[in-house]
Amino acid sequence: MAADFNAQAFSAVELIRTKRDGHRLPDEQVRWLIEAYTEGIVADEQMSAMAMAILFQGLDDAELATWTQAMIDTGVRLDFQALSRATSDKHSTGGVGDKITLPLAPLVAACGVAVPQLSGRGLGHTGGTLDKMEAIPGWQATLSNDQMMRQLEEVGAVICAAGDGLARADKKLYALRDVTGTVEAIPLIASSIMSKKIAEGTGALVLDVKVGSGAFMKTLDDARELARRMVALGKAADVTTVALLTDMSTPLGLTAGNALEVRESVEVLAGGGPADVVELTLALAREMLQAAGSDADPEKALADGSAMDAWKQMVRAQGGDPEAELPWAKETEDVVAERDGVLTQLDAMAVGVAAWRLGAGRARKEDPVQAGAGVVMHAKPGDRVTKGQPLLTLHTDTPEAFARAREALAGGIEIGDETLERQPLVIDRIS
Amino acid sequence: MAADFNAQAFSAVELIRTKRDGHRLPDEQVRWLIEAYTEGIVADEQMSAMAMAILFQGLDDAELATWTQAMIDTGVRLDFQALSRATSDKHSTGGVGDKITLPLAPLVAACGVAVPQLSGRGLGHTGGTLDKMEAIPGWQATLSNDQMMRQLEEVGAVICAAGDGLARADKKLYALRDVTGTVEAIPLIASSIMSKKIAEGTGALVLDVKVGSGAFMKTLDDARELARRMVALGKAADVTTVALLTDMSTPLGLTAGNALEVRESVEVLAGGGPADVVELTLALAREMLQAAGSDADPEKALADGSAMDAWKQMVRAQGGDPEAELPWAKETEDVVAERDGVLTQLDAMAVGVAAWRLGAGRARKEDPVQAGAGVVMHAKPGDRVTKGQPLLTLHTDTPEAFARAREALAGGIEIGDETLERQPLVIDRIS
Repeated sequence: MAADFNAQAFSAVELIRTKRDGHRLPDEQVRWLIEAYTEGIVADEQMSAMAMAILFQGLDDAELATWTQAMIDTGVRLDFQALSRATSDKHSTGGVGDKITLPLAPLVAACGVAVPQLSGRGLGHTGGTLDKMEAIPGWQATLSNDQMMRQLEEVGAVICAAGDGLARADKKLYALRDVTGTVEAIPLIASSIMSKKIAEGTGALVLDVKVGSGAFMKTLDDARELARRMVALGKAADVTTVALLTDMSTPLGLTAGNALEVRESVEVLAGGGPADVVELTLALAREMLQAAGSDADPEKALADGSAMDAWKQMVRAQGGDPEAELPWAKETEDVVAERDGVLTQLDAMAVGVAAWRLGAGRARKEDPVQAGAGVVMHAKPGDRVTKGQPLLTLHTDTPEAFARAREALAGGIEIGDETLERQPLVIDRIS
Repeated sequence: MAADFNAQAFSAVELIRTKRDGHRLPDEQVRWLIEAYTEGIVADEQMSAMAMAILFQGLDDAELATWTQAMIDTGVRLDFQALSRATSDKHSTGGVGDKITLPLAPLVAACGVAVPQLSGRGLGHTGGTLDKMEAIPGWQATLSNDQMMRQLEEVGAVICAAGDGLARADKKLYALRDVTGTVEAIPLIASSIMSKKIAEGTGALVLDVKVGSGAFMKTLDDARELARRMVALGKAADVTTVALLTDMSTPLGLTAGNALEVRESVEVLAGGGPADVVELTLALAREMLQAAGSDADPEKALADGSAMDAWKQMVRAQGGDPEAELPWAKETEDVVAERDGVLTQLDAMAVGVAAWRLGAGRARKEDPVQAGAGVVMHAKPGDRVTKGQPLLTLHTDTPEAFARAREALAGGIEIGDETLERQPLVIDRIS
């Protein structure tokens, strides 16, 4: 608590009324609200009413910058100034099959820019980066600050669990929003993401804002607004920030699930892998390098094996064995094409929920995940398919989940007669 | 808790999202929400988010009827069927100097219709009926149900404290709304008032919906909407319900304060009193009698002393002495006219806050009130005044309050040069 904090300085109900009636909250009121909430002086029922009022009335750019800075000020702020390399990080708003962090972090490190990737676990239909990495035998998500700094200096890439000390207000506020129907407020999404990323201390930041059925933002307008607000917050905090809007109407790559996605990521690092995963990894790597002031060529680092070397070093530095056999699920079942034609839809949300139900994700944060569970895709939208051909293979240790996974897929797969014009993966860039 | 209540039947967060996004809540979800909230299964932070969503998105008439019935079902419902007389009650949304219940209840009783007036204490700038009655030496607000029924049969009028057993959900929800900036949601105001009045078991109900600076509803549109919704709720519950919209831009009568208002009420019962108090008392009495199917003439009961007799019986039945000297405040101070002219404004809110600060009202529900404190008015808007003439006399036991009362009055008193066209006291009738 700040030494000069005055619990009685303002009245929470007056602040709620101000926002509810569409007025600006002055800076000192925003700062008081966040600190008083973090300290338990503003009650949960007051903050949830405020969050709902914000969902309807918004926060303007200046209010939001103050709100975000106040959240940062409730925790520690890391500092990578002592490193010999520039730092650049990436944040994705979450998608199905989004394993991009895995090849991307070592790729950028191989190009000479350090990547401090503080990640979370998955909840719901989008997998979490830590869950994926934990499919690697021996790999540990938790590092001390000293270990993280050493690894960033020596290897150049860290994927690890964010400590509890960053933006303490965010942890409390996020849990509250989750149970009060206020997760969807764009200013609150922006401040939640950016408070953690800014507190993490990265010098540059590239945002992958997903849009489409499998994404949190279902419309391009919402995604653009979220991207615009996050970029503004980054700049206000002197972090070079760029956002790409990318398509999440269908899954990324051909796998959704923890070990399945690690395998696909290693394929990309080995110079292969699905075209969309390669394309997005390279696009984000170029942005991260450029934002950090580097003109290195990531395509070269992928081709010459230096990105793969960085991956192996990164995995080993956290106790993992990059050569170890990755786990497979005990049971598989195919989902086949019901007719000849062109696959016109393979819905990201449907595949995400199927993978989740198969055991790749969790419903509550204390639940375990299955390392081998998930979905392997054998065709993507635009591909020609023939009746009876496997479209997907479902993987699980708990075969009773097959039926529920198939239910999730119902309506998510469509086969038509006409060819499909593929949409661009990177839809827009906001800087 | 209903025997068939299923705590897991619905998810609170899904219901909040439904309302937030502007959709209807099905009946079974509304019923579940109210019961689950009353039982502590839906958390305060969820209900406050729901209340804020309702403030923005509303509840339609059918949703609101279900909501109100569900609130009633969380408590007991009284039943006056055993009485030999019809019952009719009045509820005011609260105003400054609004002592109408005091002469009205015995007046209607004297006309043969029973009045079960279950009241509350005042909070903020509007006084509470129980606080006023408690200025009478010996008078007791708390009655058992048996005492109340006997008094209704024998005297025909009861003014007493509402028990905790009526609409339990309302008590909890009202306290929550008070601290979360959600008091102002019209459907929630309507359901709060009507759940208690319907549970109270009256056969007919007349609503006095105040509009103006001293009222909760500042605009005619809001007052009309609140009245319309409450009348619809009464009808949905088979209670004959009528609303009058009445002016609260200036105080009612010439007094605001507990014993001061009792004196003025007794003057009215004695055939005198300020014209506006008499007019509104008679207008509401006619509506209450008509709604209960009676064609008795209240003007006659006022003129022939039978209303005064009923008042004395009512006071005595609850331990009070109607002949006892009422308390006076220890100190008084005059507020004088600053110039010659016509009093063009005597703002209800300003006078209400002044009376409150002088000790007539309370800031927290556990605070005491001063029986003698308040404001006596010597002129009303439209009256000609001369410089130096007393406009108000402030009464208090705590003279340090005079300065703060004068502050509250600053800007609330205006003297002009032109004559003022008096606005009608009863603005509209909604049935």
